[in-house]
Amino acid sequence: MKFCPHCGADIAQAIPEGDDRPRFVCNRCQTIHYQNPKIVVGTIPEWENRLLLCRRAIEPQAGMWTLPAGYLENGETMIDGARRETREEAGADLKTLAPFALFDLPFINQVYVMFYGPLASNLYRAGKESLEVRLFDEADIPWNERAFTVVRETLERFFRDRAAGRFLLHTGTIVPPPNSPFHHRNRETST
Amino acid sequence: MKFCPHCGADIAQAIPEGDDRPRFVCNRCQTIHYQNPKIVVGTIPEWENRLLLCRRAIEPQAGMWTLPAGYLENGETMIDGARRETREEAGADLKTLAPFALFDLPFINQVYVMFYGPLASNLYRAGKESLEVRLFDEADIPWNERAFTVVRETLERFFRDRAAGRFLLHTGTIVPPPNSPFHHRNRETST
Repeated sequence: MKFCPHCGADIAQAIPEGDDRPRFVCNRCQTIHYQNPKIVVGTIPEWENRLLLCRRAIEPQAGMWTLPAGYLENGETMIDGARRETREEAGADLKTLAPFALFDLPFINQVYVMFYGPLASNLYRAGKESLEVRLFDEADIPWNERAFTVVRETLERFFRDRAAGRFLLHTGTIVPPPNSPFHHRNRETST
Repeated sequence: MKFCPHCGADIAQAIPEGDDRPRFVCNRCQTIHYQNPKIVVGTIPEWENRLLLCRRAIEPQAGMWTLPAGYLENGETMIDGARRETREEAGADLKTLAPFALFDLPFINQVYVMFYGPLASNLYRAGKESLEVRLFDEADIPWNERAFTVVRETLERFFRDRAAGRFLLHTGTIVPPPNSPFHHRNRETST
């Protein structure tokens, strides 16, 4: 952030009085522009014991398989956002959703909220952000071509729970893989 | 948002190609500035069957009683954020925290994540944003002087669960009170 979205003047990084960390502060109107984590909402869509995955058409991780997920929008509930993302990316509708996992990803300033739910039918098709959408048996999950650590963490917990005959609510912090650029990423973000 | 935080040029509201809703788009550099919900993290701090509440020193709802809560910061996990807010507002440390409630507040573009936990000791004191901090028995909760619907919804569920001898994970959507200005609030926000 270089210019004030309110008045267009230059922005500086400064610790405001009474605060304990640097913020983007306008040099003219003094407005403090806070930066906060974003919420990603997604689903684990199931049909006759198989899960619906999407192969990403866009970066990051283009060509890799993922669960339907995306940023929660203003004015939207988390469940509504998770349904919307599933419709947009996989052309699929879900029945009743239940919360399954709540993950912190502090290295990229995100929180993931994943819901589990059966598909309303076996109708689905790739949306604009997907190359391909397919149902997978557990044995066929493309583990070596999956996008994002949080997808692996979600799927592993899901199959463990399903084998045990009950779904728990999962919480935890996702750590970036060792070769990830996020390993040395600073806490501050800039836009 | 009136000026582009990247280049300082004028911002217009427009529906970008492939999108389905208006965004803030820079007239010069074409950057799309997305607006997304914020996460509020808070706690239900308990000491010998009593709950720790804070009387707010600042608007909104100055003078009213609330649970410690505030915006999640970049680079922070939800549990760490909830502990930080409890220290800042109530000068108190918590033992092990467990997730208790996950609320959507789409009318103000917020998600609340509330954790339950016993206090580490009976040491507490009002921080800068609190006029007063006090432990309350259930019978003494100042229901008529409490801030925010989400606090009432959290406390009611907490006492119900405690009486039943088990804590559930609660989810739901908070609706603004009938006399609230948010009743006619538009979906779009501006900064």
